[in-house]
This record gives sequence, structure tokens and C-alpha cells, in this order.
Amino acid sequence: MPSITFWYDFASTYSYPAAFRVDAAAAAAGLTVNWRPFLLGPIFAALGWPTSPFNLQPAKGRYMWRDLGRTCARLGLPFRRPELFPQNSVLAARVAYALPDDGARARFSRAVYRAEFGTESGPGVNIGETGVMADILAGAGFAADATLARAAAPEIRQALRQATEAAQALGLFGAPMLTTDDDELFWGNDRLDEAVAWASAVR
Amino acid sequence: MPSITFWYDFASTYSYPAAFRVDAAAAAAGLTVNWRPFLLGPIFAALGWPTSPFNLQPAKGRYMWRDLGRTCARLGLPFRRPELFPQNSVLAARVAYALPDDGARARFSRAVYRAEFGTESGPGVNIGETGVMADILAGAGFAADATLARAAAPEIRQALRQATEAAQALGLFGAPMLTTDDDELFWGNDRLDEAVAWASAVR
Repeated sequence: MPSITFWYDFASTYSYPAAFRVDAAAAAAGLTVNWRPFLLGPIFAALGWPTSPFNLQPAKGRYMWRDLGRTCARLGLPFRRPELFPQNSVLAARVAYALPDDGARARFSRAVYRAEFGTESGPGVNIGETGVMADILAGAGFAADATLARAAAPEIRQALRQATEAAQALGLFGAPMLTTDDDELFWGNDRLDEAVAWASAVR
Repeated sequence: MPSITFWYDFASTYSYPAAFRVDAAAAAAGLTVNWRPFLLGPIFAALGWPTSPFNLQPAKGRYMWRDLGRTCARLGLPFRRPELFPQNSVLAARVAYALPDDGARARFSRAVYRAEFGTESGPGVNIGETGVMADILAGAGFAADATLARAAAPEIRQALRQATEAAQALGLFGAPMLTTDDDELFWGNDRLDEAVAWASAVR
């Protein structure tokens, strides 16, 4: 079965709506989705950026939060701007690689994004904290302690490092990014449908 | 009649497809379009950038050219990557303000973008050269010499300065940007339809 690869960083804002759309869009086109978290931090650091461009460029940041709110409203997704941005996404990405990519990783990832950007009752949680991560895991029906233990294993750390290196080698410079089996790149929640159409046409 | 304002820089790549779409999209929604060229250069310079982010970030630049090609193909617009990027857009912007915003400015602007990004027979022209600009004007049916003379007048230079200052005050950080009568911002060719829908709903 042809596939599409969904590259995301748990600190990435527009990855939130994309994470809630990609499975249904791909399934409708007969594609499977590879859920591949990676870290934008090293890619930004290589450009000399100490933080997100949305913080480095205040006008762009103000626009992004407003636009993300409009996008979520259009999609019927809850949205609340978190107090902390960008978050440290290393722990969440390791936990994601500790879960199989058979639906479990996607379900966990959506739960993280929801806790980070979609808690209407209050500002989003700090996903870099182990206790918060345990709550998210338990809330999504996973064995929190066992999963967190596995997330700290050397092979999981290595899997995340390899994913980030692969992302850099592919030329990824932002998130979310969708790549097809013929290595075509599509950047952003905006390009999700176009990416699915491309992947569907070339199989 | 309610309106939408189309902010563009003649050096901006994604402004090319947007310039060919905005009039029809707005007309279908009963909106007029204000064509408002401005200069991104001073806005980028204020961030410490000596050139376009597409040049400062090679991976992002490679992606942009590929994505722009896909976008133009989807829209049925000719596309060829120019040898020179970004171009000096000051002369073109002054000429645009020397023409009335009654269809003439839009027609001239589309001719510039076509010469810059859509010449299939060879790489795009250098729009910073006066002779090239005269050819574009004549080809689009304007009196080249008279229009170029008017473009050099102090009030036209001042109009461009004011537009760039207004863009900066509105928080514009890229192009194309669409703004509505209630000052909502929409960035990019990607947001054109959403901007038109917003402007149409709030009138």
C-alpha cells in the first residue's frame, strides 16, 4: 500500500490541526500514514536561530497565533494559545517512538497536541514535564510508567536522532512536512490535501 | 462597495499567482480590490536580513521554487525560475503608483510578474532596468515614456514610502498579504480565498 510520511514536531503549532486531519485524508485516498516526529531545534540552531522564528519575528508570531485560531475554528478544533512557546518537545517525541506506528503513535500524538493547544478550560500544559506526560499517556489509555521507561531507552533516543538527521537530509526546514514515496515535499497544514493527492497519483 | 487590499512586492514569488487570481475571486464575492505594492526590503532589513529568507535559508529556497512551480502548474500559469532573485522592485512599484488603481495598475502588475516569472522562452527579465520596464509598459498598452517620467516624481516616491510605512504599521512581514476593511490579515496566495470570504462576511 502506498504511503505518505507525516513529519511533525510536538512544539509546532500548525502540526496540531494537521495531526487531526492527516489520517482521514490519507485513508480516503487509499494511503497509509507514517507518523514521524522529529526535532526542529537542531535545524533552527544550524541557521543560527536560538528559538522559533515566531518568537524571533514578533509580527510573524502575532499573525501565526491569530491565523492558527482562525484555522482551528474553521476545522472545529478547540484552540487556546499556550503560555509557553515553543515547548521542549524531546520527551514527547521519545514517547512517540516508544509506541508502535499502528495507530497508537498517532493517537498519543493527537492527545499531546490537544493538551498543548486545545485545552479550552485553561492554558496548555507543559509537555516537557514527565508528570504531565504520564497524565497524557494515561488519559489516552496507555500504560504510563512502562511507556515512559521505554522512551528513555538508548534505542528510542537513537530513533529520534536518526529521524531528525533524516529530516535534515531530506531538506525539511519546518513542520508539519509531508513527504511522498518519491520524496516530494509539502510544507504545512495548508499543503496536506495537495500532498495526499500527489502521493495518490504517483503510486 | 466593500473592498479587500492586496499588498504585494514585485520581488515576491507567491505574489505572482495571487496577482492572477485576486481580481476574479474578489469580483465573485462582490468586492473591489485595492492594489497596494510595497517594499519588503526595509521590513527584512529591520530584522537584520540583507536579502530574502529564501536565499538566507537554502532548504527553504529550494522548496519554494519547487512549490511555486507546482502551484503555477495547478493554476495553469506559465512558470520559469528567474536567474536573478530577489529583484530590485523599487522601479516597478513606483511605476505602479504612477498608474491609477482602476484596473490599469493591476494590468501593469500582472505584466511585470509574467515577465519576471512566466517567460517560458527564457529566464525572466531584470525588472530593475528602465529599458525593460519601458518594454513591459509598452507591451501592456501604456505610454512608456510618460509613465516612467511620472514614476520618478516626488509624490510617487512618497506614495511608495507611505505604503511601505503603512504595511509595517499593519504588521505585514511577507507578501502577498491581503487585508480586510476590519484590518484582518491573511498571508500568502494560500489564504486568498479565505481572505475574500472574510471580507465578504463582515461587510
